[in-house]
Amino acid sequence: MVELEVFDNPRPERDYTITHVNPEFTSVCPKTGLPDFGTITLEYVPDELCVELKSLKYYYLDFRDKGIFYEAVTNQILDDLVKAVKPRYMKVTGQFSTRGGLHSVITVEHMSS
Amino acid sequence: MVELEVFDNPRPERDYTITHVNPEFTSVCPKTGLPDFGTITLEYVPDELCVELKSLKYYYLDFRDKGIFYEAVTNQILDDLVKAVKPRYMKVTGQFSTRGGLHSVITVEHMSS
Amino acid sequence: MVELEVFDNPRPERDYTITHVNPEFTSVCPKTGLPDFGTITLEYVPDELCVELKSLKYYYLDFRDKGIFYEAVTNQILDDLVKAVKPRYMKVTGQFSTRGGLHSVITVEHMSS
Amino acid sequence: MVELEVFDNPRPERDYTITHVNPEFTSVCPKTGLPDFGTITLEYVPDELCVELKSLKYYYLDFRDKGIFYEAVTNQILDDLVKAVKPRYMKVTGQFSTRGGLHSVITVEHMSS
Amino acid sequence: MVELEVFDNPRPERDYTITHVNPEFTSVCPKTGLPDFGTITLEYVPDELCVELKSLKYYYLDFRDKGIFYEAVTNQILDDLVKAVKPRYMKVTGQFSTRGGLHSVITVEHMSS
Amino acid sequence: MVELEVFDNPRPERDYTITHVNPEFTSVCPKTGLPDFGTITLEYVPDELCVELKSLKYYYLDFRDKGIFYEAVTNQILDDLVKAVKPRYMKVTGQFSTRGGLHSVITVEHMSS
Amino acid sequence: MVELEVFDNPRPERDYTITHVNPEFTSVCPKTGLPDFGTITLEYVPDELCVELKSLKYYYLDFRDKGIFYEAVTNQILDDLVKAVKPRYMKVTGQFSTRGGLHSVITVEHMSS
Amino acid sequence: MVELEVFDNPRPERDYTITHVNPEFTSVCPKTGLPDFGTITLEYVPDELCVELKSLKYYYLDFRDKGIFYEAVTNQILDDLVKAVKPRYMKVTGQFSTRGGLHSVITVEHMSS
Amino acid sequence: MVELEVFDNPRPERDYTITHVNPEFTSVCPKTGLPDFGTITLEYVPDELCVELKSLKYYYLDFRDKGIFYEAVTNQILDDLVKAVKPRYMKVTGQFSTRGGLHSVITVEHMSS
Amino acid sequence: MVELEVFDNPRPERDYTITHVNPEFTSVCPKTGLPDFGTITLEYVPDELCVELKSLKYYYLDFRDKGIFYEAVTNQILDDLVKAVKPRYMKVTGQFSTRGGLHSVITVEHMSS
Repeated sequence: MVELEVFDNPRPERDYTITHVNPEFTSVCPKTGLPDFGTITLEYVPDELCVELKSLKYYYLDFRDKGIFYEAVTNQILDDLVKAVKPRYMKVTGQFSTRGGLHSVITVEHMSS
Repeated sequence: MVELEVFDNPRPERDYTITHVNPEFTSVCPKTGLPDFGTITLEYVPDELCVELKSLKYYYLDFRDKGIFYEAVTNQILDDLVKAVKPRYMKVTGQFSTRGGLHSVITVEHMSS
Repeated sequence: MVELEVFDNPRPERDYTITHVNPEFTSVCPKTGLPDFGTITLEYVPDELCVELKSLKYYYLDFRDKGIFYEAVTNQILDDLVKAVKPRYMKVTGQFSTRGGLHSVITVEHMSS
Repeated sequence: MVELEVFDNPRPERDYTITHVNPEFTSVCPKTGLPDFGTITLEYVPDELCVELKSLKYYYLDFRDKGIFYEAVTNQILDDLVKAVKPRYMKVTGQFSTRGGLHSVITVEHMSS
Repeated sequence: MVELEVFDNPRPERDYTITHVNPEFTSVCPKTGLPDFGTITLEYVPDELCVELKSLKYYYLDFRDKGIFYEAVTNQILDDLVKAVKPRYMKVTGQFSTRGGLHSVITVEHMSS
Repeated sequence: MVELEVFDNPRPERDYTITHVNPEFTSVCPKTGLPDFGTITLEYVPDELCVELKSLKYYYLDFRDKGIFYEAVTNQILDDLVKAVKPRYMKVTGQFSTRGGLHSVITVEHMSS
Repeated sequence: MVELEVFDNPRPERDYTITHVNPEFTSVCPKTGLPDFGTITLEYVPDELCVELKSLKYYYLDFRDKGIFYEAVTNQILDDLVKAVKPRYMKVTGQFSTRGGLHSVITVEHMSS
Repeated sequence: MVELEVFDNPRPERDYTITHVNPEFTSVCPKTGLPDFGTITLEYVPDELCVELKSLKYYYLDFRDKGIFYEAVTNQILDDLVKAVKPRYMKVTGQFSTRGGLHSVITVEHMSS
Repeated sequence: MVELEVFDNPRPERDYTITHVNPEFTSVCPKTGLPDFGTITLEYVPDELCVELKSLKYYYLDFRDKGIFYEAVTNQILDDLVKAVKPRYMKVTGQFSTRGGLHSVITVEHMSS
Repeated sequence: MVELEVFDNPRPERDYTITHVNPEFTSVCPKTGLPDFGTITLEYVPDELCVELKSLKYYYLDFRDKGIFYEAVTNQILDDLVKAVKPRYMKVTGQFSTRGGLHSVITVEHMSS
């Protein structure tokens, strides 16, 4: 798997919010083998670390050929990013385009304990 | 009636939100016999189960020839989905197109006790 | 005056929200005699009764030739509908189009005691 | 009937275009007796005369209680304005709001011969 | 089949344009048996006759249970309306919602010879 | 100074909200002498009195030739209206158009004690 | 009157188009004494000269206290700019905000002979 | 390569236009190896044949792993579809998302000789 | 560094909000040396001082040639403005345009203790 | 000066259109020394050569510190690109953001003789 790179938070003493939006996410439906398309929005309050933008891009590209459902992929992105960045708070939103006349949004949050 | 299929929630230990939007809902007005059109938005926090997208689509298609009022259909969709999915929280919003110059929105919620 | 018809709430045991939007409201300015135009949005949580859509339309049409100010008409619509429907909660919003370069919005609420 | 007032075109030696848009037009459907709502757009190239804005407003208000179909009203507005203003060119567009799920646009032109 | 009713054009001596938009068209895909949804726009220059709006609505409703492809249905609507209305010019545009990630528009014209 | 006229609140026993939006506000920058343009939104909960719409318009027109900064004008409008209307609550928002590449919004509130 | 300054067209050997949009135009209605607001769009093909942007701004500001009708002001702006710039082609469009429920657009063109 | 399937044009005696829009096109940049994303719009006047929608979808999917430039891919799609459908007229438009701060559109046409 | 000028708050006895939006912010990416573009929104509740608009503009211009990351620049703008204005509350939001297919938003807040 | 790189047109036997949009153009006003911002749209019909996207980006970046007027910069971009690409047809459109309350668009075309 592509490794998520991190860098030191320039203001760890302050709570603030970083959002990165990827409108070009694509993976594969494990049932039909057809591609899914969506927008992944990552929002987090950093603790000691921030995610490096270019490695985040390559991390998303790695899903291009993976067969995975909407609910699972959104949860996995949150888990991978929580593990790499150890944020105070993180939210991942996956907005997926129309399939069979319906479109879907999955929203997953993590709060550091 | 079309059966709503479910699958196991991939992260039951975490509260998160799933939204499915159907902009192609149609039923029949029991008073005039004329078709009604609307958008049904289903939003829920799953417990052990998630609703399978294709069976949800067929469930909605089943209303195509049914005579039912706005208030009744929105409540029935919530009741049927609560029964099938047993969610921690669920909301159904029905936005219906213009009839006699007025358009309507019905919003119904369920909180697991 | 046109009578507001009601029907039995299909789910009185549940709190839920019904919204009817009328973008074709018109009355008359009592000062100038000129017509006013606006959008009336009715939002309520029903108790035992729901307002019937067609009678609501005719109720609104009845203001076409009445001379009445923005503040008064929005309050009167709330009073008439509270009296007919006896809701748990009701809100009426009147958005009125530009007069003398200004446009106006009046929002009135009722909470059952 | 309300009289359309005119004033002298300030530049009769030049062809140019004047457009007046009325988003608050209302008349009555002769079939159902219910009000119709629409936007009337008047566009013309003046010859010797221009239509005075306030009298145009009162002219439109005069349809408030008239029973008349979309096709007829759009043609009549063109005829009345051509008669009063004697323009080099004139176009009237009536955009009418949703009735029975359909909305309609009527466009009528006059070219001075 | 539902009959298209017509009425006499109020200004047959003038070329002008009538447009009726139906955003609530639905038919059935003959291949999958699943409903299709779309917006049908009818634009025409009347000769002696205009199409009556209510009968046009019922004509469209008649496709609700018919299995027919996009290209065929748009052409058939044009043929049926040309036959009933005998216009100087007519255009039918069918905009159909997303199927398999693609959405489609079919545009068909008729010019009286 | 133009006097703000008031009229009796038709429902003083009920808390409700009145909003008047003026997208045609203009004053003069005291530094450059150049005109400023903006939208002033007045929102309030009336007590015994409501502001009369026409006098409000003339009150705003009175700033056309006054040299005054964004922060000062928004506060002054609130002060003048609080003094005239004695509302339970009032908010004034001034949105000012681009100057030197930046545009600005000032929001001021008053709560009756 | 404010003088319109010009500078040498950097490419007089080529036909090209320059557009300047002023969304902050205001003048006074000669009938009511009330201010009018609008957007003035100037579009031209320069010959030997181009209009200098800052002097154009001051030229527009000069109308702030002038009483002049929509039709007259749009024609005068064209005349003044044609005189100062001597363009191959010029068009002035005045879009004026709502008065008495109607809004207006005036479009005037000049072609060098 | 995926084969483009065709079916008989239901109205070959009439010139009309068919448009299919694919907002989910993706290929690979041959220079960087990174994915490109875009919307491909196919518009054509059929002669004897129409392209079948599902095979068109699979044809587009076939570019998912191909390295090809914007200019080349838009031209190739036109060539392949002209060969399969032999239309009277065909246009392909590729709108590609932002790369290095720029976004691009390629438009290619074919006219049967 | 460019100095931020301040002026006395005209209503220090009242809590209110001032927002200045700069859609023309640009700095340089320290990694690639390429320019970054964004919109900086400054929102604050003044105490004794307000920031002067022209000096704020020049302060932003000073970043045009500086190499600095999104997270760092948003935090630095907040720190510099807090130091100069000593506000009761301040928020800086940086919305940055697409880089490598992703776009980003950084939001930083300060609360006077 | 940055050199514009070109590559061989993949279909020189066909007339087609290539458009590249740069919403991040910035240069410097020679009068005030302040930065200008705009969107540059390049549209052309290639002959033997196409402009390479990355070198086009660097070409635009080269204006970041140049003092040049709107009219001059739009004409120069056209001249430079015509020289490098020798197109059959080329158009450059510069849309520049608000300065002194006005915003501007310059459109320049070249047709190969």
